[in-house]
Amino acid sequence: MRLHDFPYSPNCKKVRAVAYELDIPLDCVTVNLFDGARAPEFLAKNPNGRVPVLEDGDFVLWESTAIMRYLARGSALLPADPRRAADMDRWIAWQLAHLGPAMSKVARERIVKALRGHGEPDLARIAEGTAEFHAATAVLEASLADDGYLAGPLSLADFALAPHYDLAGACQLDLTPYPRVTSWLTRVCARPSMQRAIHYDTQARP
Amino acid sequence: MRLHDFPYSPNCKKVRAVAYELDIPLDCVTVNLFDGARAPEFLAKNPNGRVPVLEDGDFVLWESTAIMRYLARGSALLPADPRRAADMDRWIAWQLAHLGPAMSKVARERIVKALRGHGEPDLARIAEGTAEFHAATAVLEASLADDGYLAGPLSLADFALAPHYDLAGACQLDLTPYPRVTSWLTRVCARPSMQRAIHYDTQARP
Repeated sequence: MRLHDFPYSPNCKKVRAVAYELDIPLDCVTVNLFDGARAPEFLAKNPNGRVPVLEDGDFVLWESTAIMRYLARGSALLPADPRRAADMDRWIAWQLAHLGPAMSKVARERIVKALRGHGEPDLARIAEGTAEFHAATAVLEASLADDGYLAGPLSLADFALAPHYDLAGACQLDLTPYPRVTSWLTRVCARPSMQRAIHYDTQARP
Repeated sequence: MRLHDFPYSPNCKKVRAVAYELDIPLDCVTVNLFDGARAPEFLAKNPNGRVPVLEDGDFVLWESTAIMRYLARGSALLPADPRRAADMDRWIAWQLAHLGPAMSKVARERIVKALRGHGEPDLARIAEGTAEFHAATAVLEASLADDGYLAGPLSLADFALAPHYDLAGACQLDLTPYPRVTSWLTRVCARPSMQRAIHYDTQARP
C-alpha cells in the first residue's frame, strides 16, 4: 500500500503511527502540502487537495480517519465491545469537529502564515482558537482517568488525538493546566509506533 | 433509550433519522440549545454542552457520529465490505472536518446571530464559509454517480450529510450548481425516516 503524506502533518502522523503499531508496511511518498497537493495528478487522487491519501491497488482512500479505520480493520485497535467502540468513536468525532478546528485556527495564524509569508497573524483568530482549545481540552482532562487510554484499552482514538496534542507546544498552546492529558500524551507518544511517526521527518525515508 | 436533542439541529436529525430508519424506539427530550445545554444537569451528561446526547441505561454517549454508529451496529447501514465501509467513513469524516465547519460559519452569522440578537453578521466570515462550502460541495458533486448513495448502498454517510445539506437554503447557500448533490439530497430526504426527522419540530413530540 502506498501513502501520500507530509511529515509534519498530524493527520499523516495518525495514519503512520497506526500502520507502525500494526506492522503494516507502507510505501510513503512525500507530497509538498502547499504546492504538490494542488497539482493536477494529486487532485486526481484527492480532489480536496489534502494529505494523507492511501492507495491500495486500485482503491484510493482519503480522510485520515477513514484510512486509520481501514488499516485497523479486525485489529485490537478497534474495540469489540459496543460501548468501548462508541467511546472510541466519540473521541475521534470530537477531534474532527472541535479540537481540530480550534487548533487549526491557531496553527494557521502562528505557523502556516509565517512559513508561507502570508503576513501578520490575526490576533482575534488566535484568541478564538485558543479559547476553543482550552474549552475542549478541559473536557478531555475531566474525562481521563489517571492512567489508561481514551476508550479503555489502546484504540484508534489515542492515535487520532495524540499527534494533534503533540503539536500544542509548537502552536504556543499551554498544556500545563491539564495533568491527565499531559500524562496520557506522554504515555501514547512513548510508544515506538508514535515515536517513529513523530520523528519520521528526521529519518531516512523509505 | 433516551435522546436529548433539539429539533432544528442537523446533528440531532442525523441520529433521529437513523433511529427511525432502523425502527429503534427513542424517548426524545428537547433541550434548549442556547440555555438548557449550559445547565449544570445537562453539562453533567455532556461537558461539551452540546446536543445530541444518548442515554442507554447508565451509558451516556455524546457526538452525533458516535451515536449513529452505536445505534446502527450490526445493521445494513454499516457496509460489511471493507472498501464500502471506508467510503462511508470517508464521507462521515469529511462532513465533520470540512463541510460542517464551513456551513457552521455561515449558519452562525446568518441564523444564530439573528435568533440571539447578537448583532450584525460578519460578512468576511460569511464569504469565507461560503467559499469553503462551494469548494467542498464541488468535490461531492464530482464524486457522486447519477443515482445511488455516497458509499454504494444506503449507509450512515447519507444520514450524516443530508441533514446539513437540507439546511443549505436556510443558510442562503446555493445548491443549483450541483445537480447530482441536489438529486441525491432529494432521494435521501424522500425517505420516510428523513421526512420524520426533518419535520419533527412540527409534529407532536413523543
